[in-house]
Amino acid sequence: MKYANRMNQMTASEIREILKVTEQKQVISFAGGLPDPELFPVNEFLTAANYVLKESGSQGLQYSTTEGFEPLRMQIANRMNSKFQSQITKDDVLIVNGAQQALDMSGKLFLDKGDLIVCESPTYLGAINAFRTYECRFISVLTEDEGMSLSHLEETLKAHPDIRMIYVIPDFQNPTGRRWSLERRKRFMDLISCYDIPVIEDNPYGEIVFDNQIFPSLKKWDKNNQVISLGTFSKIFCPGLRVGWISASQEILNRYILLKQSSDLHTSNLSQRQISKYLELFDIEVHIRKLILAYRNKRDIAVSAIKKCFPADIKYTMPEGGLFLWIELPESWSSRELLEVCIKENVAFVPGEPFYPNGEKKNAFRLNFSNADEEKLKEGISKMGGIIGRYHSASMSETI
Amino acid sequence: MKYANRMNQMTASEIREILKVTEQKQVISFAGGLPDPELFPVNEFLTAANYVLKESGSQGLQYSTTEGFEPLRMQIANRMNSKFQSQITKDDVLIVNGAQQALDMSGKLFLDKGDLIVCESPTYLGAINAFRTYECRFISVLTEDEGMSLSHLEETLKAHPDIRMIYVIPDFQNPTGRRWSLERRKRFMDLISCYDIPVIEDNPYGEIVFDNQIFPSLKKWDKNNQVISLGTFSKIFCPGLRVGWISASQEILNRYILLKQSSDLHTSNLSQRQISKYLELFDIEVHIRKLILAYRNKRDIAVSAIKKCFPADIKYTMPEGGLFLWIELPESWSSRELLEVCIKENVAFVPGEPFYPNGEKKNAFRLNFSNADEEKLKEGISKMGGIIGRYHSASMSETI
Repeated sequence: MKYANRMNQMTASEIREILKVTEQKQVISFAGGLPDPELFPVNEFLTAANYVLKESGSQGLQYSTTEGFEPLRMQIANRMNSKFQSQITKDDVLIVNGAQQALDMSGKLFLDKGDLIVCESPTYLGAINAFRTYECRFISVLTEDEGMSLSHLEETLKAHPDIRMIYVIPDFQNPTGRRWSLERRKRFMDLISCYDIPVIEDNPYGEIVFDNQIFPSLKKWDKNNQVISLGTFSKIFCPGLRVGWISASQEILNRYILLKQSSDLHTSNLSQRQISKYLELFDIEVHIRKLILAYRNKRDIAVSAIKKCFPADIKYTMPEGGLFLWIELPESWSSRELLEVCIKENVAFVPGEPFYPNGEKKNAFRLNFSNADEEKLKEGISKMGGIIGRYHSASMSETI
Repeated sequence: MKYANRMNQMTASEIREILKVTEQKQVISFAGGLPDPELFPVNEFLTAANYVLKESGSQGLQYSTTEGFEPLRMQIANRMNSKFQSQITKDDVLIVNGAQQALDMSGKLFLDKGDLIVCESPTYLGAINAFRTYECRFISVLTEDEGMSLSHLEETLKAHPDIRMIYVIPDFQNPTGRRWSLERRKRFMDLISCYDIPVIEDNPYGEIVFDNQIFPSLKKWDKNNQVISLGTFSKIFCPGLRVGWISASQEILNRYILLKQSSDLHTSNLSQRQISKYLELFDIEVHIRKLILAYRNKRDIAVSAIKKCFPADIKYTMPEGGLFLWIELPESWSSRELLEVCIKENVAFVPGEPFYPNGEKKNAFRLNFSNADEEKLKEGISKMGGIIGRYHSASMSETI
């Protein structure tokens, strides 16, 4: 049977395959990007769900508008404005099935075969997969602790006048945990405003912030309406409901709405109403503060364990938010090889290579610290430290 | 801003625009394809939803596998086998966001720019929109009351060796309400088995059957594993949850799974568990029998009203299932024009032209009989009859 050409580029997500291996109980897994299910507000959600079904049961189970449930769109606009200093209304918001669908639809909206897209280096692997469906090509721009290198970005934009989209995750990026500085955001927007290119700002982690400093969305400096912001309830609430959103100018959003309609008509009406009711009945900020405390504590435990158990010259990020740490092994190492050894000793992570769309680096890996409990965090990192230490000694003696 | 080329072909669904007009209370609308919300099993669903949240709350709110909730996939496979004489297992089932997402993903999987796809004439407008996103071209094959014309299909297949996909709705098709005969199904599969082309069998209405005769899925005769069957809970249960499925051979399904993953990771975990629990706790067959009685009654009322109020030479289908009737006006008429007059008199339907991918016919329209109550059905059809009658007299006198 003949498939579309795009299928030649599609391969199973490495994370997904690793997750299958790590489903065995004895494995301590830092591989997935799962929130801690112990922290889900199950009882509050149950209360909200009951309200919805009792108050408007048949309406909540019927077909609905493509744009999404109006009260929820309003709640999202208000939250975004108060948290990230944007100035949007409900009419600028489209509800989708988690931010992943927003990525897929962004590819659909902007990318023709062979088109160029700029992303950070490394960047979110799920975005690479979504965009790749549209047979695009990637240019990775050097990304430092402060954010995307603007000299490299400018050089790239000048060298390739046919760039069609820029994809960034300025807040506690998946996979590195990095946050762009305020200064870098401003200067990025100054530079970008000279180009008629859409900027996809993916922000699933921005509210999970450990140092109490929430930075504004790029939209704050968006004079030309070129920023498209993606958000989701997956990390601040519950991912299993698959509810996220796109916020963009009317002109752009209307086209996303057309695509949403042909993609699946609309996102679950009931899930939207349940989340909206939860936001009405409960204070999600109280819940988010609980998440922050828990994840900050886990980040601290993870970092202390790394300090204690990893060889001193192994580099790692110190994220001020989100769910991930990024670890860089010595240049010549392969984190895939290391994973094979680790899995045999029942500890797992995601190797870094698939986060580089052009496979630039093989010696880094992503460590999720939100899902495992404290004991497992310590035990798993200590095990990994042991394995890395053995590698380290071996490679040292080879060098000598 | 530059958008992908596919956006040039995307226009807002005519149904959606009409639905906006018909939201006003005074309008009697036969335009949407909405099930009757009075028939939704709200209380039973509430019971199931509570069970799920109490038994496995945090699991139901967590990320899940792309393929879908295993018990639900098993329940779907069993139902399909017992109802439509297929022989599938849970491993042949992928859960998606309603059958609409399955259509979008089918386009993504099989269609490159310019590719040819064969469909019925007329065919489901939401499928046309979904496939069009992938910049394909359509060939409509003549479709009669018994099903697709096999001589025309054979001729078409011979003339175009580059056809990449065939899309059919053999059961109570949207928009015509037609059902393919058993004989036509068999002969269609005989013919198709000589070609290495995937057949998308879309079946949202097959269980809403008024004469107690459920016909087998095309899969029954699928020697070469080329049939991909799409199903949904939207018409037999509740559409607002957005839960449907794709059933296909392993080779094909694995590719759909890759696409599902990059599209939105997975369908709402909670919705899947809720439907699964409903199927476990309650007998959906009892519910479906209730739907059938109600919709059959509405079909009868609609048909009697048409007989009574429409000029005798207006043709209409007499569907033995589903939610739609199809009405053919005299050749020279435009159903869009008729709609404008009808909307002024507060009654609405969907004109037929957008159901023809190449705009072949302008004189038919679709009438939904499932959503309006009995009084509105009579009143609305009587109003339409009056308007059509006036047109009819006018065109008669012109002819003379």
